[in-house]
Amino acid sequence: MGSLKNRDIISILDFTKEEILYILDLSKEMEKKGCPDILRGKVLANLFFEPSTRTRLSFEAAMKRLGGEVIGFDELGTTSTVKGESLKDSVKIIEGYCDIIVLRHFLEGASRLTADSISIPVINAGDGASQHPTQTFVDLYTIKNAKGVLENLTVGFLGDLKYGRTSHSLAYALAHFNAEMYFISPPSLRIPKDYMEELELRCVSYHEVDSIYEVSDKLDILYCTRIQKERFADPVEYEKVRGVYKLSKSIMDGLKVKDDLKILHPLPRVDEMDESMDTTSYAVYFQQAHSGIPVRETLLAVILGAI
Amino acid sequence: MGSLKNRDIISILDFTKEEILYILDLSKEMEKKGCPDILRGKVLANLFFEPSTRTRLSFEAAMKRLGGEVIGFDELGTTSTVKGESLKDSVKIIEGYCDIIVLRHFLEGASRLTADSISIPVINAGDGASQHPTQTFVDLYTIKNAKGVLENLTVGFLGDLKYGRTSHSLAYALAHFNAEMYFISPPSLRIPKDYMEELELRCVSYHEVDSIYEVSDKLDILYCTRIQKERFADPVEYEKVRGVYKLSKSIMDGLKVKDDLKILHPLPRVDEMDESMDTTSYAVYFQQAHSGIPVRETLLAVILGAI
Amino acid sequence: MGSLKNRDIISILDFTKEEILYILDLSKEMEKKGCPDILRGKVLANLFFEPSTRTRLSFEAAMKRLGGEVIGFDELGTTSTVKGESLKDSVKIIEGYCDIIVLRHFLEGASRLTADSISIPVINAGDGASQHPTQTFVDLYTIKNAKGVLENLTVGFLGDLKYGRTSHSLAYALAHFNAEMYFISPPSLRIPKDYMEELELRCVSYHEVDSIYEVSDKLDILYCTRIQKERFADPVEYEKVRGVYKLSKSIMDGLKVKDDLKILHPLPRVDEMDESMDTTSYAVYFQQAHSGIPVRETLLAVILGAI
Repeated sequence: MGSLKNRDIISILDFTKEEILYILDLSKEMEKKGCPDILRGKVLANLFFEPSTRTRLSFEAAMKRLGGEVIGFDELGTTSTVKGESLKDSVKIIEGYCDIIVLRHFLEGASRLTADSISIPVINAGDGASQHPTQTFVDLYTIKNAKGVLENLTVGFLGDLKYGRTSHSLAYALAHFNAEMYFISPPSLRIPKDYMEELELRCVSYHEVDSIYEVSDKLDILYCTRIQKERFADPVEYEKVRGVYKLSKSIMDGLKVKDDLKILHPLPRVDEMDESMDTTSYAVYFQQAHSGIPVRETLLAVILGAI
Repeated sequence: MGSLKNRDIISILDFTKEEILYILDLSKEMEKKGCPDILRGKVLANLFFEPSTRTRLSFEAAMKRLGGEVIGFDELGTTSTVKGESLKDSVKIIEGYCDIIVLRHFLEGASRLTADSISIPVINAGDGASQHPTQTFVDLYTIKNAKGVLENLTVGFLGDLKYGRTSHSLAYALAHFNAEMYFISPPSLRIPKDYMEELELRCVSYHEVDSIYEVSDKLDILYCTRIQKERFADPVEYEKVRGVYKLSKSIMDGLKVKDDLKILHPLPRVDEMDESMDTTSYAVYFQQAHSGIPVRETLLAVILGAI
Repeated sequence: MGSLKNRDIISILDFTKEEILYILDLSKEMEKKGCPDILRGKVLANLFFEPSTRTRLSFEAAMKRLGGEVIGFDELGTTSTVKGESLKDSVKIIEGYCDIIVLRHFLEGASRLTADSISIPVINAGDGASQHPTQTFVDLYTIKNAKGVLENLTVGFLGDLKYGRTSHSLAYALAHFNAEMYFISPPSLRIPKDYMEELELRCVSYHEVDSIYEVSDKLDILYCTRIQKERFADPVEYEKVRGVYKLSKSIMDGLKVKDDLKILHPLPRVDEMDESMDTTSYAVYFQQAHSGIPVRETLLAVILGAI
């Protein structure tokens, strides 16, 4: 395994299975013991060209819990970009202020461009519809905690699989672990063809279905994502699919599922996951959200060479 | 007296007289000695769903002066709420990132809802027109510093008593200390009836008057608040009352007042308190603003179990 | 040399030559060695009434690298100013929360007013079209690093010299060092008359020219600034001058210049400095941007009495 020090985190595809497992193991230790002060004197720049409270606060809390400091901005409005500065210039300047950059940008490829322009490490916190790799580490960590293992699981992906970047990344990552995958979505929101081809290259066994009723009893993990109204040209079409991909306790009671099924959701949710689900044994999405801290602490510490 | 560790601070009514005095005594010590580093490793989340620079910076400075760290946001624009997430979901997630939440919200009851949804302590930094309890601790601290005692004072409340939450909370708190209260406001901005009934239940002796000229010579403390133009449907009505509730050095010279009268104002002021007042012996409103630091330091330290 | 402790930094004109050189020498040491923890327990308030990402992040990183803490805001929208509070009131209150204020304001003179209203030190991070003194320290530091000396240099100022406050301040500062100055701008963007008179008082030898072609071979330093479209009532006029004050590698190849010419730019740039310039031996503008850290670290440490 190559060194992870100074590594950029742009796509989950950049990490081997061995590296992923190593990060997850360290995250477990981090959650148990914490490591205050190991990043004392280090500065993280949180560059959020597009708002994302949860991700921003999660990186900020992780850095500060390890004794590091955070600078940054959380919207385009106050940046030099409004004066016409290029992203490349912005990051080349800010590189001189900090030890690591966390970037959220509305353009696909912005993170790779940034990493190629500067010499300090860059973490992609979401760029366009493409990658959000630290969320995938968090998802894998949550699954491993919930099931004990990552190998040989049957995983359902429910909701918007066309634009849902967290589902794409997680599917890629689970390809390392011999997962059987069910993609459950309306036909108009199927997983894009190039993702499919990538999964086939990796010999993943997958199935596309329209409804959770067809496959619920097979699943060890159900990964839900929101269907966004904005994706539909026709509101009637939206209203039609919306109800089908909504979970609640009473719907679960009518479904045949394994007792130890665990349900993840990257959050925020709107109405696709009813509050009545929160107290079921299936729900692990709040644990998933909280796992953002130990996993991001670990990634920061490893990349900055502190562990 | 029950333990204050892990206590939520939602309303000043949740605190006994004994607890209030205990907090004020500790604040005095805090102001004298400071306690750097006692909150090292702790993280406060400043969740400001409604802007309030002064309150936000004051909590931030207090936390950092004790060695703690702060994460958060200061307006709705960059939060997941704009994606439709419920407040309850937001705070349940952020609970995993921090040790204490300070919440400012535009809806009455938001703080109580938050405290009921999560297990870490919550401080209400203002919700709707209802409570802002840490401001009341600051006000009491300022009065005690200015007069030496809290018992048996004659206190005037001037300005908008209908919507002025700081006046309501302070009146409640002073009910513990046998205060005689004068509510000075235009008839349209009188203190609401249910607050009055609460004060009567607590056997407070109070009087409602239209003008400070009627009562100025009786007052030990004058608590001023701004009359907001927005409260008046008719601008003429606003212009009429506005002049009456405006203080300046020359107006003070024409009033009969006690030599040791002290005037508070939660600030910001616009034109209801002329700058000529600042150098009079009556003005303690800047000290009041500065007292926000030791009082909030104390509240944070006590609730987080550090003292 | 008077003590620099508790000194306000409002204008570069407030500093003697001796003081400037002292700051630059300390900055060099700071860059080499760093001083973690010397500002532990100190709080800086970054009050940005007008956005400026670069300057704000630069002060924030400097303070944090020395172990200090930062509070503040980065736009008018969330401040009490929107409720009508005066700047004087705002800073008098925030004075109680911190040890030093860094102010960026859209009104000329705002920093001086602030410094006169409060007793903690104030650093002007740009007010209106007038001063931005820490940028000047950074510029001088960059020139000294690039040329070894500050004395007897021939310096060209290119671009918008009418509104470009960084050029004005740098010209003032270089007046201490027997610089020969060339002001290169379209006639409509000449350096204002009162600046000229100030330079004459200081016996500076200067020349005004329309084009860099007239003087390029004489320059040791070329200080470029952006010509802002907004300055021109007539867009045709803008398009006419724009091309003339744009640099690129191919333009440089056609110019006669000294081998050791160094080009500075306060950044951000838009199209007045082509990216092809970045890899030439002339370009030092990214080093200049990065020098913001050691220079601001030094200024903060000196003013707060830590060195």
